Amino acid sequence: MDFQASAKKLTTSVKSAKIVPNMTVDDLVTEYGGCAFGAGRLAEAVNIYYEMLASEKTTKFFGLAGAMTPAGMKIIIADLIRDGHIDVLVTTGANMVHDTVEALGLHHYKDTDCSNDIQLRHECINRIYDVYLPDQHFADLEEFLHRVYAGLPEEKLSIRQVLTEIGNNLDDESSILKTAADMGVPIYCPALQDSVIGLQAWLYQEGNPLHVDAFADMHEYMEICSEAESAGVLLLGGGVPKNYILQSMLVTPKSFDYAIQLTMDRPETGGLSGATLDEAKSWGKVGENAKSVTVYADATITLPIMVAAVRTRLLKDVI
Amino acid sequence: MDFQASAKKLTTSVKSAKIVPNMTVDDLVTEYGGCAFGAGRLAEAVNIYYEMLASEKTTKFFGLAGAMTPAGMKIIIADLIRDGHIDVLVTTGANMVHDTVEALGLHHYKDTDCSNDIQLRHECINRIYDVYLPDQHFADLEEFLHRVYAGLPEEKLSIRQVLTEIGNNLDDESSILKTAADMGVPIYCPALQDSVIGLQAWLYQEGNPLHVDAFADMHEYMEICSEAESAGVLLLGGGVPKNYILQSMLVTPKSFDYAIQLTMDRPETGGLSGATLDEAKSWGKVGENAKSVTVYADATITLPIMVAAVRTRLLKDVI
Amino acid sequence: MDFQASAKKLTTSVKSAKIVPNMTVDDLVTEYGGCAFGAGRLAEAVNIYYEMLASEKTTKFFGLAGAMTPAGMKIIIADLIRDGHIDVLVTTGANMVHDTVEALGLHHYKDTDCSNDIQLRHECINRIYDVYLPDQHFADLEEFLHRVYAGLPEEKLSIRQVLTEIGNNLDDESSILKTAADMGVPIYCPALQDSVIGLQAWLYQEGNPLHVDAFADMHEYMEICSEAESAGVLLLGGGVPKNYILQSMLVTPKSFDYAIQLTMDRPETGGLSGATLDEAKSWGKVGENAKSVTVYADATITLPIMVAAVRTRLLKDVI
Amino acid sequence: MDFQASAKKLTTSVKSAKIVPNMTVDDLVTEYGGCAFGAGRLAEAVNIYYEMLASEKTTKFFGLAGAMTPAGMKIIIADLIRDGHIDVLVTTGANMVHDTVEALGLHHYKDTDCSNDIQLRHECINRIYDVYLPDQHFADLEEFLHRVYAGLPEEKLSIRQVLTEIGNNLDDESSILKTAADMGVPIYCPALQDSVIGLQAWLYQEGNPLHVDAFADMHEYMEICSEAESAGVLLLGGGVPKNYILQSMLVTPKSFDYAIQLTMDRPETGGLSGATLDEAKSWGKVGENAKSVTVYADATITLPIMVAAVRTRLLKDVI
Repeated sequence: MDFQASAKKLTTSVKSAKIVPNMTVDDLVTEYGGCAFGAGRLAEAVNIYYEMLASEKTTKFFGLAGAMTPAGMKIIIADLIRDGHIDVLVTTGANMVHDTVEALGLHHYKDTDCSNDIQLRHECINRIYDVYLPDQHFADLEEFLHRVYAGLPEEKLSIRQVLTEIGNNLDDESSILKTAADMGVPIYCPALQDSVIGLQAWLYQEGNPLHVDAFADMHEYMEICSEAESAGVLLLGGGVPKNYILQSMLVTPKSFDYAIQLTMDRPETGGLSGATLDEAKSWGKVGENAKSVTVYADATITLPIMVAAVRTRLLKDVI
Repeated sequence: MDFQASAKKLTTSVKSAKIVPNMTVDDLVTEYGGCAFGAGRLAEAVNIYYEMLASEKTTKFFGLAGAMTPAGMKIIIADLIRDGHIDVLVTTGANMVHDTVEALGLHHYKDTDCSNDIQLRHECINRIYDVYLPDQHFADLEEFLHRVYAGLPEEKLSIRQVLTEIGNNLDDESSILKTAADMGVPIYCPALQDSVIGLQAWLYQEGNPLHVDAFADMHEYMEICSEAESAGVLLLGGGVPKNYILQSMLVTPKSFDYAIQLTMDRPETGGLSGATLDEAKSWGKVGENAKSVTVYADATITLPIMVAAVRTRLLKDVI
Repeated sequence: MDFQASAKKLTTSVKSAKIVPNMTVDDLVTEYGGCAFGAGRLAEAVNIYYEMLASEKTTKFFGLAGAMTPAGMKIIIADLIRDGHIDVLVTTGANMVHDTVEALGLHHYKDTDCSNDIQLRHECINRIYDVYLPDQHFADLEEFLHRVYAGLPEEKLSIRQVLTEIGNNLDDESSILKTAADMGVPIYCPALQDSVIGLQAWLYQEGNPLHVDAFADMHEYMEICSEAESAGVLLLGGGVPKNYILQSMLVTPKSFDYAIQLTMDRPETGGLSGATLDEAKSWGKVGENAKSVTVYADATITLPIMVAAVRTRLLKDVI
Repeated sequence: MDFQASAKKLTTSVKSAKIVPNMTVDDLVTEYGGCAFGAGRLAEAVNIYYEMLASEKTTKFFGLAGAMTPAGMKIIIADLIRDGHIDVLVTTGANMVHDTVEALGLHHYKDTDCSNDIQLRHECINRIYDVYLPDQHFADLEEFLHRVYAGLPEEKLSIRQVLTEIGNNLDDESSILKTAADMGVPIYCPALQDSVIGLQAWLYQEGNPLHVDAFADMHEYMEICSEAESAGVLLLGGGVPKNYILQSMLVTPKSFDYAIQLTMDRPETGGLSGATLDEAKSWGKVGENAKSVTVYADATITLPIMVAAVRTRLLKDVI
């Protein structure tokens, strides 16, 4: 018996990557495409992301968890918004805090990931792995936020509206919040309380009128989900953004047609962050015939690769 | 030169574990105590947790992330609440969803972690790793929740109040929500929207009055933090519960005196979920002189060990 | 349609764990048995390991990777050998190095996992995560090993024979090498060169006759595999021990009937260490009908649990 | 007090990555260089690797663990050998098995990572995560290896010599074994028994003279280590290759001046595979002033990036 006739698994041979000087990122991804394991998955993710971005009828969701803005992923995301590649952003509050800090002209700093944290406390410096920022940044942020909050209308507001107003008050083209506000792209952050933006909102609310309804932006969000002719999502990490984006499909008759996750989480702990996208198909969150893939690698490495490759392909389409 | 004189690192020798039949969990933890790596850390975590629970002046926080209630950790947590070992619970919405499902008399089911998820969809069964539950459970849950929501006052409510009301409407002594409501233990869930409880609240709100203010329970929460003579926290996983508990210390002059994390997350990705508790000291969230430890292992394995050992020690104190 | 009729996945309900003071480890495992995720897997691993140890016709293999002897797992393994629960041990060289160090009356020490490693070098102290040992131990080990090597016959030897002779020269009932030598249990270590035992063998060989054939112990090893009426394996970590044990079944008509892996490695990198035991079925290494499970958690935590629970059950059988 | 004056940690600001179409891999790495977390580490790894490869006086070691040849990393490594960028290769046996399989004109195949492994067994197909190969390949390999072994001299041989002879018998410019044999680059594989090459050597030895001494190639290997004016290492994964390369410095007065590890392993389990390169400094394996970095991400993604960027920089030096 010829094994090739009997076995479906033996049709696509692994093609070892060939690496040459001066190759572009898209060339690199093409070489990944012949490989297995993480490299093969990343090439597949690029193919899916390209198809998703090129599809005009597809509403593009982006889930942003992890400390991605202090790590240097901010401009990539702002540029994706500006160029129409993100229609809906769901994020943790912390990412918006650090985006705002930078938009105020303040910096994050890089150093070792192994520090004397007690000494840092004495020096009034806060650490995020190998990123550092001084307490003073938060004092400046507080002042800014209270100014924004003071300008908000006294009526019932949604979290999305609060974030839009923060964006409207920033003056930095590389800011996610500013760019989203300019482009009319909504930013949803279901756990805004769980961030310095939320802490300051609460502090402001202690002495001033501020009415933010927890569910007030769900109507517009669900309408976007319901009205999407086709839906695609790129997830950085897991957490609330992943679950919130996927769960929307539980109350709409739709499901995601494209789904990509870049993460270091693993399925075996049973948590949603590490859950496979196949598992999401059992819930109807991701469609039966969806194109989906998870790349298990540091997202600060894989996101720039994906964006560089897809932008190259999109440019070729134009030319 | 005698190396033992010169070197601080060589004072406590590793003592290999001796395992015998019929040993108790607390005996096991004692044997862990002589070991290094994860075993040694778990023994240290038990020591810290015992000291924390035995300290009457310490306010006890509990952070609950991951799919812990469908996995079978519900009664452990409910019992900790009932016995006064949890003063404040911060959780993801999903854990409360699955607690409610079980309190309604419905079950989660165990099977393989490797399924045909598309077939499951056709059978109307949802998968959480190796846990399964049918769509019908959510229909029953929806009916219950709408009944609860219909009974809520029309005034502005906090998320904590909504969760207390759900607990008040349940009739199951093993339920976390019910036990917390009975015991007056507050449950905070900053991202309630990110769960079926939140989805149904939104659906209810589409046709009925329901005013849930995102920041309304932060005042009482911050007061608990500010007034704590001493504070301790046990964190299962990371996510919003970890960050929300720790960040409270940014706006109070306090910090945690005890901090334990049971997690599979890792520090190298830079996200808060995997961040070390030392990193939290640079922010002042965990105190300089705090006792803290992270155990890197599946929390469904380590939480029951910790609770069994600490309960044994607490009982000895009584006798 | 009744979902319970249609769906095979919904027969075993999750039963939340109930934790009480003074419970034994075996009671704990019984509670794990109702849970999902890691707890459920660990309970399953105990069931399989009990059945494997209780089966008189089963040849019991044990794969030992990771720094398990310096971490305090030595006595557990020596006791398993003494009681007939390990018939064949396959290990890394390092585990035997540290077993020998302790058998010479020298200690490993515990301290923080975060040290100034350059300062340690100046103090002549070597670190293994949170375990420390001084250079002097290796000088003592070297002297001992050269004495053993000088007593070896000049004929062609196998690695297994060298390890047996080291064991014969030790005088410590808690030593793995000594106990295995006493009990006639063979220890295989395919990469002996990759350890201080190997380095010293090479140094000895530079000036003295020593003939160790790389393949000389494979005949006896393969005979054990071939003649096993039934075969079972407990794997701690992956590495050479895992692969060497499993690959033996490629050249015999047998396969493992029981297979348990305790590991933190993950499948997604494609390496053998993290590979699932299902994958091993495609190779015929693990049998079609084998009972197998992988527990993803720190083995210094899970191994003692498994052994305590299984020893309790075996004792009950006797009584 | 000005925080910038007091704090050493606040000198290098994070610079968010800017991604544009058609950028080269080296441009991408430059953008990584402004970022934190994995991206920053990868940029640092490229800088170190470039300095290491450009240093003429440095002996270049390469550690190869994980299933890298079936995954498609073969040509990259063969090309590095051919261009003088690898002076010493230490590998697992499996990587050489799959290199040989491909050099015989046989292929590995890619498909899903989720298969029915029992059905695969019935179809005589072996799975390595998402890579597949038929039993027949091993039959062909066996025939080839026995032919090679039959041509070996009857005197005492080292494992390195056996691997060189396999390389000499291959006719494929993209093979690691062939290229290393052509270039006179030694390949060390301390656990050769732990592979199909080893299994077949044993089977051959059952009926034919074959004398492979386990320690016979350590003299030449240690001479390379001792005579190195400077030493650098790139480690893919951990396992025996990592330990064997690093431990050589225990018996020489040298230590590594450059050390890079690409891995998904983590330090917390205490095993050598996940151990930090700082830990290796306490042993004197890596030098006090060495440049070293670990990148925690899938090596099939990061190795091609590193090689593409370094080759670009080396080419610029020539021009």
